[in-house]
Amino acid sequence: MMLPMCVMPRCIRISGKPGILKNLSRVFQKNMTNNTPEVMMWPALQAAQRQRGQTGKNPNVGAALWRHGRLVDVVATGDGGRPHAESQLNILPGDVLAVTLEPCAHEGETPACARLVADARPSKVYVGCLDPDPRTSGHGLEIMKEAGISVQAGICEHKARHVMAGFLTRMIHQRPHVRLKLAMTRDGRSALADGRSQWITGFEARQHGHLLRAEADAIMVGAATFIQDQPTLTCRLGLSGRDPEIFVLSGREEISSLPKNVQILGTSGGQQDLSQILRQLAQEGIGNLLVESGGRLAASLLQAELVDELYCYQSDLLLGANARSALGALKDQELLLPKGMIVKERRQLGQDQLTRYVVER
Amino acid sequence: MMLPMCVMPRCIRISGKPGILKNLSRVFQKNMTNNTPEVMMWPALQAAQRQRGQTGKNPNVGAALWRHGRLVDVVATGDGGRPHAESQLNILPGDVLAVTLEPCAHEGETPACARLVADARPSKVYVGCLDPDPRTSGHGLEIMKEAGISVQAGICEHKARHVMAGFLTRMIHQRPHVRLKLAMTRDGRSALADGRSQWITGFEARQHGHLLRAEADAIMVGAATFIQDQPTLTCRLGLSGRDPEIFVLSGREEISSLPKNVQILGTSGGQQDLSQILRQLAQEGIGNLLVESGGRLAASLLQAELVDELYCYQSDLLLGANARSALGALKDQELLLPKGMIVKERRQLGQDQLTRYVVER
Repeated sequence: MMLPMCVMPRCIRISGKPGILKNLSRVFQKNMTNNTPEVMMWPALQAAQRQRGQTGKNPNVGAALWRHGRLVDVVATGDGGRPHAESQLNILPGDVLAVTLEPCAHEGETPACARLVADARPSKVYVGCLDPDPRTSGHGLEIMKEAGISVQAGICEHKARHVMAGFLTRMIHQRPHVRLKLAMTRDGRSALADGRSQWITGFEARQHGHLLRAEADAIMVGAATFIQDQPTLTCRLGLSGRDPEIFVLSGREEISSLPKNVQILGTSGGQQDLSQILRQLAQEGIGNLLVESGGRLAASLLQAELVDELYCYQSDLLLGANARSALGALKDQELLLPKGMIVKERRQLGQDQLTRYVVER
Repeated sequence: MMLPMCVMPRCIRISGKPGILKNLSRVFQKNMTNNTPEVMMWPALQAAQRQRGQTGKNPNVGAALWRHGRLVDVVATGDGGRPHAESQLNILPGDVLAVTLEPCAHEGETPACARLVADARPSKVYVGCLDPDPRTSGHGLEIMKEAGISVQAGICEHKARHVMAGFLTRMIHQRPHVRLKLAMTRDGRSALADGRSQWITGFEARQHGHLLRAEADAIMVGAATFIQDQPTLTCRLGLSGRDPEIFVLSGREEISSLPKNVQILGTSGGQQDLSQILRQLAQEGIGNLLVESGGRLAASLLQAELVDELYCYQSDLLLGANARSALGALKDQELLLPKGMIVKERRQLGQDQLTRYVVER
């Protein structure tokens, strides 16, 4: 199902941030009793998308509540993971609930959401995808079904997996969902031989890059990039509180005077080592990791098959073979796409082109 | 003015090759008395385009004859440059003639076309651009004007200059119009480290490359490319007689067993030397030169500002920094486009992208 992006709910309630989405749309205000489950899931997916990178160890769940065919509320998990999406809704008997992830079945700091939903007795619950957390996986659905509620899972599952990729990859593969960003010239260069690289890509491409930062829990850069570029690595989209943590991968480089949101990770640079570092980040709760690195780290990550999405921003400049390569050396290349990857998206961003590669699952 | 490519005359008469263009279109068969000069020039431009690279030292002129608002004939200069386009038309008094280049004013092996046209007394003559040949420049127009014919020059001039670029560049700059073709991966590589490069781009991009060959008087390659790839460098579009001459730029390399359409040009590789070689090719009558080279020659030509059009075919592969660069080292780069160039066209060719750069004049 494809709905235009303008079809957005009037307001997504996110704890402490009311009205982030101000795009008024009357599409969902009409009495549409024949909505498909996919249409009813859409506002929930939008809400989840908006909270990507903001919910810490918890999944960025989105939920939409429908009453008599009308959308009455859209919520997402709050910043840092509390409150859960479902718990913010005032569900009445007969309502339809669309939620991107299976409601949790385990009691923790908060009561189990599946139980809350079951007690509220909506007539139907649509679920995007199952929670891989073994304490919930399948049990959440069971609790609601046992209460006599019609439950249907797998609604817009692919899109749901995409917007909650950080949480899901961390649960399933014990590492963050890794987005690798490369900005390069037409001939694959990232900087002049002396390191100057400020204007490889234009305004629109850089803005898009900031959007990736807004959706990340953390950014990882190599020490050389950090020292050379002194990147501020902030999100400059005017979304306050959206500056992610920064990790600098460092071998023997000396780095002094660190800003407070920057941490150093020691590394030997090997593939085994990279897996280990990612595992460690996942344990610290990092689900969405954006890598803005030089060519060497980029190549190491691709080679180790640790990249889930590759964002390649490319300008029309030509810098020639003496300029710095945006991608370092790869071994055993056989004229193939990065292993297991397909091109999922091509976009013109001002004068530049974006090619987005994703791992085909 | 933009007309769709399907708006083509029924048949372009080219001496010895009747009916090359079989695309039937009734658009020009209607009685359209309000045609603009640009519409009337269009079939002439198409005819000129079809003969690009086929007319030797002579310009690939196209001409369209209109009678009572209807297109009655479309012709182009014949293979090798004879007969001239205008001389193939049976012009009657009152006709309108559209011709891509100013009709020649000098008597040579053939009578002056401007005189032929003047004697036939069409009511109007539309001319694409002036002939830079000093024996004609402006005189052709004068001869026709003196005969009382309404003459208007500069109709679709930009397009006319484009389709006859080989002749015009040779006349004005004493060198061929140089098209440089680069096929590369997303990260600017043309081959694996060991030289393998067969499938960098796909079928559609390669077909497009063959079209460039069909429009060339000659192809130039570096010796290394010639030895390594043993390229056949033929045009494989099923257009018989469209295989251009091949020049191999060679320093000290030993090249044996040359096919008969291949010539060796000795070079030291310097910029001065490249200018000299191009001047020599122009003197031999080469107007449209396609360069299919390795990275070093490509860089030298760009650096020397000897490239008029750059065709960059790019696939989604990533080969990494140990693979061969499609473009060699450039000096004094300042994060700019190739000097004086702008991107004129972007196209998707199957899975690959074409970016066409042209020198902005």
